[in-house]
Amino acid sequence: MKFEVTILGSSSATPIFNRNPTSQALNVNEKLYLIDCGEGTQQQMLKFDVKASRIEHIFISHLHGDHYLGLVGLLSSLHLNGRVKPLNLYCPRLLKDIIDLQLVSSETELQFALNYTFTNPEKAETILENQDVSVETIPLDHGMACTGFLFREKKRMRKLIKEKVEELNIPIEYYSALKKGSDYISPDGKVYENDVLTIDSAEPKTYVYCSDTLYNEMYFEQISNATLLYHEATFLNNMLERAVETHHTTALQAAEVATKTNAERLLIGHFSARYKTLNELLDEARSVFPLTDLAVEGRVFAIGDQ
Amino acid sequence: MKFEVTILGSSSATPIFNRNPTSQALNVNEKLYLIDCGEGTQQQMLKFDVKASRIEHIFISHLHGDHYLGLVGLLSSLHLNGRVKPLNLYCPRLLKDIIDLQLVSSETELQFALNYTFTNPEKAETILENQDVSVETIPLDHGMACTGFLFREKKRMRKLIKEKVEELNIPIEYYSALKKGSDYISPDGKVYENDVLTIDSAEPKTYVYCSDTLYNEMYFEQISNATLLYHEATFLNNMLERAVETHHTTALQAAEVATKTNAERLLIGHFSARYKTLNELLDEARSVFPLTDLAVEGRVFAIGDQ
Repeated sequence: MKFEVTILGSSSATPIFNRNPTSQALNVNEKLYLIDCGEGTQQQMLKFDVKASRIEHIFISHLHGDHYLGLVGLLSSLHLNGRVKPLNLYCPRLLKDIIDLQLVSSETELQFALNYTFTNPEKAETILENQDVSVETIPLDHGMACTGFLFREKKRMRKLIKEKVEELNIPIEYYSALKKGSDYISPDGKVYENDVLTIDSAEPKTYVYCSDTLYNEMYFEQISNATLLYHEATFLNNMLERAVETHHTTALQAAEVATKTNAERLLIGHFSARYKTLNELLDEARSVFPLTDLAVEGRVFAIGDQ
Repeated sequence: MKFEVTILGSSSATPIFNRNPTSQALNVNEKLYLIDCGEGTQQQMLKFDVKASRIEHIFISHLHGDHYLGLVGLLSSLHLNGRVKPLNLYCPRLLKDIIDLQLVSSETELQFALNYTFTNPEKAETILENQDVSVETIPLDHGMACTGFLFREKKRMRKLIKEKVEELNIPIEYYSALKKGSDYISPDGKVYENDVLTIDSAEPKTYVYCSDTLYNEMYFEQISNATLLYHEATFLNNMLERAVETHHTTALQAAEVATKTNAERLLIGHFSARYKTLNELLDEARSVFPLTDLAVEGRVFAIGDQ
């Protein structure tokens, strides 16, 4: 099953030439989950050939403009391009007022349903569960209502041990039950326990998205053992004071989060406009957590082995 | 005096690769007047080296998203980059509610004053007058509250006829009065009428911005004799029916507006995303009004002879 993320924007509050405000498109089994939607996200989607029409769910972490100002434009374009399929939006409650006011002001009545689920910044909650994935909010410490998101693949069914199943001539109509864990009773009444007929599937992979936050252990347990951890790294560690003041994280701290929570790999992003190039941020994070990459525009990262 | 316009965006409702929603930066005597501010305008300003900090006035024609969705992001960046100088905003009344709600939602208190002047879609009004320029609204026919803007250079003072002034030994301290039209009385009491001492300055140049509108003669008289007329041309004329339905203009009609209102030059823009290339739109307009250009991203047009 495909499970990969395309980076659409990597800048923090103010854009900089070649870096756009935050947005990521997560592809789970060929369905798109958009995570944050800074100004210009729809143009970035055109640039990197991410089909807006395929988005089913949009997650907005918080209401600083660099995380949502592209949303109304995107909704408007989907509407003008004929979308009728409902769209699910997971966001702070106030965003509905903003969207409603802007739609009324432009005399737009969307042709598709916008289904809201409001996030609770105080408490981790499962906000979506379907056959591919479950999504939990991650309460973060950003000085305002802000949640990250944890995407966890659904546990796959057990895999048949082909030779064993064939050896016993088990009829095909039993396969589905076996994959779900049932034992098999042969026509002569003999019981074969499931674990001699199947093997467990791989552990579900997780993508953890920590948008804007102070380094704070409050969310460490929830995000532990991430297959791929995205964590903001707005500043170098020589600007730690500024990071604390603005409720942000340094590259060094992001790497410490990855280490302490036992992440497999780390992506850093949300870079301050003061950094024209990003090498120093990457080097600083890799000095602590070598398996770090830059979440920059147009890069696509597979989550775990595909 | 510098009087030129830089095109920041040329697309209509939905963006297309390489074309951004509508925005233009007008430079009048080295002061910037931003006209409309579609999503991504601040990124376009970075791209084309238009200094956001130099903007003094922002004009928003109407509240379709492609004309204003970049505004809150721009205000936020100006704030974060330390602006304290007041900014003047000319716009439909509802935009204040939108901006206020978004600032409250992001817990932002702007460090600079935002001075609003609300436009009246029913009546042409002078909304700004300073030493360089006056600006009038142009009520347009777009099926919703929408005004264009007419920028008229201030009439320059009369020019001294140097030889005559020197021949009469007129003291320098009289020059300012002469330029304003006063006669000169010499020490021996002789009166020299102003028009033997000075010549009239050139006629003031005008830039006319007609954002979104149905072809409608209601605004023709007001915009007549434009030095440079920008007129939307969303469609080719073979889509006239669609243009009428959506209160837009075709390239052919835009050229007819230029002809009938006696414009010196015409710019067309606000192109539908259906046109991957723009040659046909330009050819259609030039078939009626040869002095037409495409208002595409990054182009800079002088208004009249500089």
